[in-house]
Amino acid sequence: MSEDRPMSEAKDLEMRQTEARAAFEELRRKILAALEALEAECPGPFAEPDQQPGRFVETDWVRADHLGGDGGGGRMALLNGRLFEKAGVHCSTVYGSFPPEFAAQIPGAEEDPQFWASGISLIVHPFNPHVPTVHMNCRYVATSKAWFGGGADLTPMLDARRQQEDADAIDFHAAMKGACLRHREVADYARFKQWCDDYFYLKHRKEPRGIGGIFFDYVSTPAGFDAELAFVRDVGESFLAIYPKIVRRNFATPWAEAERDAQLVRRGRYVEFNLLYDRGTIFGLKTGGNVDSILSSMPPLVKWP
Amino acid sequence: MSEDRPMSEAKDLEMRQTEARAAFEELRRKILAALEALEAECPGPFAEPDQQPGRFVETDWVRADHLGGDGGGGRMALLNGRLFEKAGVHCSTVYGSFPPEFAAQIPGAEEDPQFWASGISLIVHPFNPHVPTVHMNCRYVATSKAWFGGGADLTPMLDARRQQEDADAIDFHAAMKGACLRHREVADYARFKQWCDDYFYLKHRKEPRGIGGIFFDYVSTPAGFDAELAFVRDVGESFLAIYPKIVRRNFATPWAEAERDAQLVRRGRYVEFNLLYDRGTIFGLKTGGNVDSILSSMPPLVKWP
Repeated sequence: MSEDRPMSEAKDLEMRQTEARAAFEELRRKILAALEALEAECPGPFAEPDQQPGRFVETDWVRADHLGGDGGGGRMALLNGRLFEKAGVHCSTVYGSFPPEFAAQIPGAEEDPQFWASGISLIVHPFNPHVPTVHMNCRYVATSKAWFGGGADLTPMLDARRQQEDADAIDFHAAMKGACLRHREVADYARFKQWCDDYFYLKHRKEPRGIGGIFFDYVSTPAGFDAELAFVRDVGESFLAIYPKIVRRNFATPWAEAERDAQLVRRGRYVEFNLLYDRGTIFGLKTGGNVDSILSSMPPLVKWP
Repeated sequence: MSEDRPMSEAKDLEMRQTEARAAFEELRRKILAALEALEAECPGPFAEPDQQPGRFVETDWVRADHLGGDGGGGRMALLNGRLFEKAGVHCSTVYGSFPPEFAAQIPGAEEDPQFWASGISLIVHPFNPHVPTVHMNCRYVATSKAWFGGGADLTPMLDARRQQEDADAIDFHAAMKGACLRHREVADYARFKQWCDDYFYLKHRKEPRGIGGIFFDYVSTPAGFDAELAFVRDVGESFLAIYPKIVRRNFATPWAEAERDAQLVRRGRYVEFNLLYDRGTIFGLKTGGNVDSILSSMPPLVKWP
């Protein structure tokens, strides 16, 4: 690499890893603060009206690499509240070597199984069936290659609201589109939106999980690391700009028992998706990941009548 | 095959299929009657004390083979009751050809993907956390080979009861052992018991699903079809002899809210097992099986706190 290149291009992998990790952890702090603020603010109709606002409880965990050495770890934050029946926001930075049976499936790990990965993931299961469930994650992965992956998608729980014409769906899509359009050199909105629709699909039921959003992986572009990280940060900021707005517009709407029931059944679809299809969940569970943080995506209460 | 052989050995495949199917359907009738009788009889402490006994609701379904032709079908029976929060008993007889990606995994289907399979499966999720969940299934499968598979296993929901020293565990094991010992020429109890322990194990949590039972597959012995079917019938009869006894001894035991909670959390493990590991569930869902009957094994209400 030429000595004449600007510092930003010459940045070595270690600096990029440090920056990506710091960005995820900054995003984490902002998201925890935003969700706790919503919890404190909400005076809506809850299961137990006198319940105090929930606060995040944080737990650190460490990972042993499959060869037994230091494998990194993470911090999970879980909230069981009155607005958010369950919310999980997790950061982790893990490293080591992939077990042989997985190395072949990972770009750049075919010959050298060493990897490093840092990311943030969140899932929010609100009490009120009118407030959509949301999921977001961003990660930076380094093998002999390095790339960003991630996305955000919205799952309104009631059939009448799980529609592309609904204001929540329109605004969520607009937010994700905005993040992509502000970083055209990195993000192809049409492709990332389609990827989301294709990914979050329950094949056995022939139905989508929610109304979509964006999904991307293996993002490594000529625009370079700084531009890519700026895009991923913008996905996080766009989530922070839109989800609280969607929560505020819905959380005071009263619900009937039948709507709560519909929500609990819909949550079953979420479980089915995560355990049957989600690559991150299955991969994490089968490679000795932290069971508590991986399965904190499971909804707090679910019905299969 | 010699003309001198007794009729029972010379019996052709079609007769064997007809007999196996009839045996499963007879077992189904007995099980529906036994579970409905328990529902009617129970005067225990229920969520809603004035609730009427549940009755099975039966639904026929047909299967299209993956090439579009007739693929058989089945009858599902579901009960949402007061003793049994949810019970499903299903018979199906399906046939056609395996999709190429599956044919390679099935004995005798490597070269000719034609198959025929008939079976019964049941799962019972009682309301009272003191009453164990139970699962049983038996099947006869024919490709260019033919064999029986099946088993029965018990899952007491409370930690204090999910112990090998508990009377329920001891009696359930004794019943399954009895079925095996009465058919030594077909069933190897020690092997079938170990197979059950190995199969019903949640690797990601490093914990067994329940207290075990028996599990067997690819049963095709020198003793022949009649002896094998007699063993499989005996597994069903032994289930019928022991499970109602276990229900009766537990269903009047009062439970505390914390025990109901523990039950709902334990049911989450059942979901995790069935969606992450259970061959029948995954195979069924990925090969166009009947989603409603396959997923009727999902518990009615589940917590992941």
